[in-house]
Amino acid sequence: MTALKETFWKRMGNVQAGLLAADGERPIPMTPQVDPEANAIWFITAAGTAADRASKSGGEASFHVADPKAGLYANVWGKVDEHTNEEKLDELWNAFAAAWFPHGRKDHAVRLVKFSPHEAEIWANDGSASFLYEVAKSNVSTHTPDAGDHGRVTF
Amino acid sequence: MTALKETFWKRMGNVQAGLLAADGERPIPMTPQVDPEANAIWFITAAGTAADRASKSGGEASFHVADPKAGLYANVWGKVDEHTNEEKLDELWNAFAAAWFPHGRKDHAVRLVKFSPHEAEIWANDGSASFLYEVAKSNVSTHTPDAGDHGRVTF
Repeated sequence: MTALKETFWKRMGNVQAGLLAADGERPIPMTPQVDPEANAIWFITAAGTAADRASKSGGEASFHVADPKAGLYANVWGKVDEHTNEEKLDELWNAFAAAWFPHGRKDHAVRLVKFSPHEAEIWANDGSASFLYEVAKSNVSTHTPDAGDHGRVTF
Repeated sequence: MTALKETFWKRMGNVQAGLLAADGERPIPMTPQVDPEANAIWFITAAGTAADRASKSGGEASFHVADPKAGLYANVWGKVDEHTNEEKLDELWNAFAAAWFPHGRKDHAVRLVKFSPHEAEIWANDGSASFLYEVAKSNVSTHTPDAGDHGRVTF
């Protein structure tokens, strides 16, 4: 695993919410639960949401992070799949999700979506002025340096 | 001005960076400088960036915020215009921008872009679990409540 990818997974663990675009709809706030071993980001959602609909056909989705506190900016492209594994849901069923569903873990509206990233552009920094200037400049130069705090990774 | 729009401008003032998509390119991190009186968000960028290119033709752009610390999630749609007003640039030329450009205020690469939003979907909250469940549910119901902490506004 490259250093940038490691940094990505580590900081993603501190991201409370990003914007998930699925099923051709506009991005909406969703909480990622990272699972680097499975190369996955899990989302718990409700039946009928864009993420749920897209996951039924293994559709493409993108997750966007802009979290100065976590020091992470990223565009993550991947596909979403429906996941009916009860064991996985139990594992992810933490205080966070428990607060969501009024009928608890057995709420029929609970849907587990597995987002499998295939590519990401990552900026791992605190959003400082000099960093953002580097971002602007790197978008002008003919090649984007694929090392350090900014680059593209494949999964 | 509606309460939600007021909240939007207030919290936007605390957003260090969001993702700006312009000129058909993928979103990149940019720092907003809000100017509610002018119904504008100013971006200082470098010549040749996507924001700079799009601004030359008054192109459409979108700015995406997902900042748990600022308590703001938003998709903002608008257009970008080139702005050559030296006075405005002087006004915005703060410690932030000064750190960016090695040759200072007179750097020929400095570009000022005016983003004029025409519509936004706003979630003004701390990203708590119950809030995000409300988000999920509101995307399922046939109508999205246009009040309180979540809604669409026009500018």
